[in-house]
Amino acid sequence: MIYLDNAASTPVHQEVIDEMIPYFKEQYGNPSSIHKFGRAASVAIQNARKRIADLLSADSKEIFLTSGGTESNNTAVYGIALQKKGKHIITSSIEHDAILEPCKYLERQGYRISYLPVDKHGLVNVEDVKKEISRDTCLVTIMFANNEVGTIQSIREIAEAAHKNNVVFHTDAVQAIGKVPINVKELDIDLLSISSHKINGPKGVGALYVRKGTVVSPLILGGGQENGLRSGTENVASIVGFGMACKIAKENMNQNTIHFKNLTSKLITRVLSEIPKTSLNGHPEKRIPSNTHFTFLGVNGEDLIIKLDENKIAASTGSACSVRIQKASHVLKAMGFSHEQITGSLRLTVGITNTDKEMDETVDVLRKVVQELRAVSPYKEKYSF
Amino acid sequence: MIYLDNAASTPVHQEVIDEMIPYFKEQYGNPSSIHKFGRAASVAIQNARKRIADLLSADSKEIFLTSGGTESNNTAVYGIALQKKGKHIITSSIEHDAILEPCKYLERQGYRISYLPVDKHGLVNVEDVKKEISRDTCLVTIMFANNEVGTIQSIREIAEAAHKNNVVFHTDAVQAIGKVPINVKELDIDLLSISSHKINGPKGVGALYVRKGTVVSPLILGGGQENGLRSGTENVASIVGFGMACKIAKENMNQNTIHFKNLTSKLITRVLSEIPKTSLNGHPEKRIPSNTHFTFLGVNGEDLIIKLDENKIAASTGSACSVRIQKASHVLKAMGFSHEQITGSLRLTVGITNTDKEMDETVDVLRKVVQELRAVSPYKEKYSF
Repeated sequence: MIYLDNAASTPVHQEVIDEMIPYFKEQYGNPSSIHKFGRAASVAIQNARKRIADLLSADSKEIFLTSGGTESNNTAVYGIALQKKGKHIITSSIEHDAILEPCKYLERQGYRISYLPVDKHGLVNVEDVKKEISRDTCLVTIMFANNEVGTIQSIREIAEAAHKNNVVFHTDAVQAIGKVPINVKELDIDLLSISSHKINGPKGVGALYVRKGTVVSPLILGGGQENGLRSGTENVASIVGFGMACKIAKENMNQNTIHFKNLTSKLITRVLSEIPKTSLNGHPEKRIPSNTHFTFLGVNGEDLIIKLDENKIAASTGSACSVRIQKASHVLKAMGFSHEQITGSLRLTVGITNTDKEMDETVDVLRKVVQELRAVSPYKEKYSF
Repeated sequence: MIYLDNAASTPVHQEVIDEMIPYFKEQYGNPSSIHKFGRAASVAIQNARKRIADLLSADSKEIFLTSGGTESNNTAVYGIALQKKGKHIITSSIEHDAILEPCKYLERQGYRISYLPVDKHGLVNVEDVKKEISRDTCLVTIMFANNEVGTIQSIREIAEAAHKNNVVFHTDAVQAIGKVPINVKELDIDLLSISSHKINGPKGVGALYVRKGTVVSPLILGGGQENGLRSGTENVASIVGFGMACKIAKENMNQNTIHFKNLTSKLITRVLSEIPKTSLNGHPEKRIPSNTHFTFLGVNGEDLIIKLDENKIAASTGSACSVRIQKASHVLKAMGFSHEQITGSLRLTVGITNTDKEMDETVDVLRKVVQELRAVSPYKEKYSF
């Protein structure tokens, strides 16, 4: 199989697994216990926290461990809302559901939410952020890079606009982390969500960066772990694995970027030149290097996925998380795509294990299956396939 | 080291680790993806869900996966409160903080919470539940077995009292699961929380059993996983491990119970007969077989833990989760213990890896260190040690 769904999840590094194993069988203590087993677990978490912080150029004390990107995003939105410093939140119309759904919940509780539009490339206009900020705004949350089309937002400018008005700025960096350098200090970010399993770490663990001085209310209450922000016995093995994944991501950032760019450049160039009536979606330059997202006119994306799967290629129409509800992509809708354009879309996201040869094989298969599907397409006449 | 803190956390079975590994490196798909990798992950989760359900005599569809016992408890409390069918909750004064803290939060939001008293053995009086139920009661939540002293509550009777008044009944079974048989149908339970790492599974995963027909609002929103009750990419490897841990727990329940009883009987008999001015806390019969909890008068429990640790024995004063705040046990307080009795307490909880020989070694060490500590105790004169 050729795995081209790295935006949905990634294989775990062997080094990460090796780091995790001892925390299952030998160092299985509860980090809150004061005996030797507990202390070993506690030290392991602190080391991992340092590695996670390093990837973001943050301080260890600013890293709060969670069960993943979704919980981090929920904690950010609710955690600021619960501070009761205003009842208005600014976000974008192309956020992940882990931001949009908490916002909709708050909307039902009487909050006002501004869902900013995006241009045809999926880019938020910083002027729109500035215009929307009011005295009642408590949070601006705009994703770092989009999970479907890979577009990278003007994070520093948006943060600046928020801070000029003393508003907290959060960014969902689940898709960006490990793909582009992120320095929370330079970018002036208050809150940032990341997830382990998107960077070759285990699933079920993530983090919320909380800038020193920013106060966030907890979502999950209990024993008071994570300095009170996130209760529950720490997921030691996974946290250790996440730490190792961050260390590797930092060390390999440059070479990975080159690798990803080489792969996606080939994919994009060959697909656009060899398959007619096809377009690349998202921003032409401001995009994460591992993402490609195409529209093949006259083709049903889901049929395409199934055909590719039969040909041993794992791909996606967009966000894995919205598959179960079979709704049309809200991201592409916000970008002004027609129903037909949305239906014909395909996301191919590369990762560390992919090879140049796989890209060639993928384009060869794609060309063939797109042709097959277009031969029976209801749009056959329209486009004279 | 002799590990006697199995109520805090347990070593992961080798069979569990073996089941998990493939889901890190090979079957790393996102269960929401429709390609082969995604489908394999989805099937793995369904199989695990079945195994978890089997341990509780529940249906697979009634098992909702979470990040652990704390999240399960929070989801139960908030999830019922958010249904807005009443603003009164009945709980006990000896619950884990993962129940008490969400209750206190709701109290600050205007809910009325009844914290039922317990007797000197830590037992809730079912009559108290009946008396407290009002037309405004939306939830009764009483733990199955206490995490400090191991006392098992009259769960079926409490459930019955709740249901007679059409009130939802939840129980935190984190400490009971795998130690005593739990049949949610026979016990007439609506909601039940369990955690993987207390039964030799990995940390960072748990479940909330939700009886068919009971409606619970979600705590974490996003992609709509777990039938909308718990969003976030499923923690596939850990869920698979949890499933295997449940399977083993079910298969070995009888032999484990005998093993635990043999170990704790020896501990209790020898400690009480060989160390003067010592008592066993919790209910003499209604207790989980793996728990022992003692008070050694005139001894500081924390000093005792440190001494034991130096002698290669891992023990605990009570709940691992409350160590960081150094507060006196609310459980022992509710049981009517004096400050001195609380201070002198020690919890020794056995697990599958402990041996009879370890119990003898532990008592030998305990006798010695208790004597040492009493020799310098401020209570030396009082008790004529």
